[in-house]
Amino acid sequence: MQIRTPYLIFLGDVPDRLAAKTGQGIVDWRREWCLGQLRLPGCGAGLGIPDLTIQKAAAQGARTLIVGVVNAGGFLPDAWTATIVEAIEAGLDVASGLHTRLGSKPEIAAAAQRHGRQLWDVRHSDRHFETGKGAKRPGMRLLTVGTDCAAGKKYTALALEREMRARGFDADFRATGQTGIFISGRGVAIDAVVADFISGAAEWISPAASPLHWDVIEGQGTLFHPSFAGVTLGLLHGSQPDAFVVCHEPTRQTMRGVSHPLPPIEAVIDLTIRCGAVTNPDIRPAGISVNTGALDEKAALDYLKRLEDDHMLPASDPMRFGMAGIVDRIAADFPATLSATAG
Amino acid sequence: MQIRTPYLIFLGDVPDRLAAKTGQGIVDWRREWCLGQLRLPGCGAGLGIPDLTIQKAAAQGARTLIVGVVNAGGFLPDAWTATIVEAIEAGLDVASGLHTRLGSKPEIAAAAQRHGRQLWDVRHSDRHFETGKGAKRPGMRLLTVGTDCAAGKKYTALALEREMRARGFDADFRATGQTGIFISGRGVAIDAVVADFISGAAEWISPAASPLHWDVIEGQGTLFHPSFAGVTLGLLHGSQPDAFVVCHEPTRQTMRGVSHPLPPIEAVIDLTIRCGAVTNPDIRPAGISVNTGALDEKAALDYLKRLEDDHMLPASDPMRFGMAGIVDRIAADFPATLSATAG
Repeated sequence: MQIRTPYLIFLGDVPDRLAAKTGQGIVDWRREWCLGQLRLPGCGAGLGIPDLTIQKAAAQGARTLIVGVVNAGGFLPDAWTATIVEAIEAGLDVASGLHTRLGSKPEIAAAAQRHGRQLWDVRHSDRHFETGKGAKRPGMRLLTVGTDCAAGKKYTALALEREMRARGFDADFRATGQTGIFISGRGVAIDAVVADFISGAAEWISPAASPLHWDVIEGQGTLFHPSFAGVTLGLLHGSQPDAFVVCHEPTRQTMRGVSHPLPPIEAVIDLTIRCGAVTNPDIRPAGISVNTGALDEKAALDYLKRLEDDHMLPASDPMRFGMAGIVDRIAADFPATLSATAG
Repeated sequence: MQIRTPYLIFLGDVPDRLAAKTGQGIVDWRREWCLGQLRLPGCGAGLGIPDLTIQKAAAQGARTLIVGVVNAGGFLPDAWTATIVEAIEAGLDVASGLHTRLGSKPEIAAAAQRHGRQLWDVRHSDRHFETGKGAKRPGMRLLTVGTDCAAGKKYTALALEREMRARGFDADFRATGQTGIFISGRGVAIDAVVADFISGAAEWISPAASPLHWDVIEGQGTLFHPSFAGVTLGLLHGSQPDAFVVCHEPTRQTMRGVSHPLPPIEAVIDLTIRCGAVTNPDIRPAGISVNTGALDEKAALDYLKRLEDDHMLPASDPMRFGMAGIVDRIAADFPATLSATAG
């Protein structure tokens, strides 16, 4: 159920930083889990952590080799098999976010079998889920939603977790995509489950918890995306959030992969409340999280101020200005949860 | 791509009528495709069509043996294997809506291989779909939606197809569930596809067509069901309907399998328009289809009259009073499509 930490991050021989973004995400958010990186000759990426051999990593206590790369098609190059087998022989589990299953390589499957090691293919979901029940479960939940795919929902959830923990909330990030799963050691690639079980998988991802505990759930897609909205709605229903944060990228003209314009933030707020009320009538917005990377500082601050005035909600860029304002709002709206870890 | 007709309907040794409802649905809507039924000793169901041996059915031209039954768990009893193998040896394909895959029985897999026959497991979807594109495609589309699961969406779509064809529309039923697939010989069990591809599968089910042709698409679930709404939304986006009909069962207090109340019809209309507008801004309601089976005739007519007044839409029970009123509305709203087959 849980990928064992600490990790050795395997980058293979990927050409550049972009191909190593999964590994970078893990280092950005779980530096303490990352003993080091393993690179093959020709690798053009680096994560700013020590280079380790498998033997050294194993000696330092590494439990899982993470294949921390992406490529078009999600294939696992044959040239990496020997390294993965070596890691298994050294006692490590292996986790991959590629489309190719680790066990589809006979040498890897045989080694895992022989040494009793676990193979994690986090992009696939072979777990059997129940259908969603829709019943209210104990615990508080926050879901990041968006005006588009790839609008910062994972980073916003992680930044919220970090800020909430720093402020004394009992908060845990809950992953719904492959990079998030490596970052939390647990989760489900929600877009890979069978359609009938989307909300059931979301219920599994965020199970009943103590009443003052916050799950901060990584959102997916948008209710307005013609390709993926079904995933978004099932995730919303299953997550039954008490609060949600809208994620937005202000310079984008059309939603990813299609020619449809982005929905207005107001429409996302309205539809999220309307649909979310099916499983949580008390759902409410807690803020707006914006990727302002394309704006200079003054333009970014002006833009955020305008959003705050227009929507009567705190607005910030998690990577640039932090999540303090949004967490202030959560503290104000749900004061009992603020001292959850104090006892 | 297409299950070959005519059919021999296999009922095995199921105990009662309810277990034979898949077969009954095929006979109700495609009597002309059904040469006969095949029952094993002890079978307690009958479809009112001739009993045929495999040999007689094959001699009459049967092309596919349909396993037309349901049971809890969807398993395929071992006792049926010999009959299925015999059908394959007689030259028939086999199609099943059970959860157990036909090919998981070695004797069946071997026979199909040996004789070059096709096995259809319509509850599963092994086809590779693209993600939904959301682009408008030629052709007219009507989708049945509902206040709940199992509220008559398949029967309503089939009754609309029948009435529209009788009135001169060029209309085809499009199946999104197992019984519907047997009835149309084609389709996808939309709740069985991977979540990322719901709307893409819906686009495949209802491909580009001539501009005056109607696809009458079988809906699934409801946007308000906490277990299955993701399927409903992806199907709505991929179907991009020009018109929709709301299906309702007036005596039901809670949605199937959960304790949530049914949404008001008005809420279903509003949310369907709001979400459907993402892929078809011209979406509009065409009527309300009600299963009035629990009401006496006067109560049913009173109820339908009240719905018509409240919603300014035609309302009828497809099995009791027919779909003429709703098809009148379609003819009025889309007059160009009425003479589509005349030329």
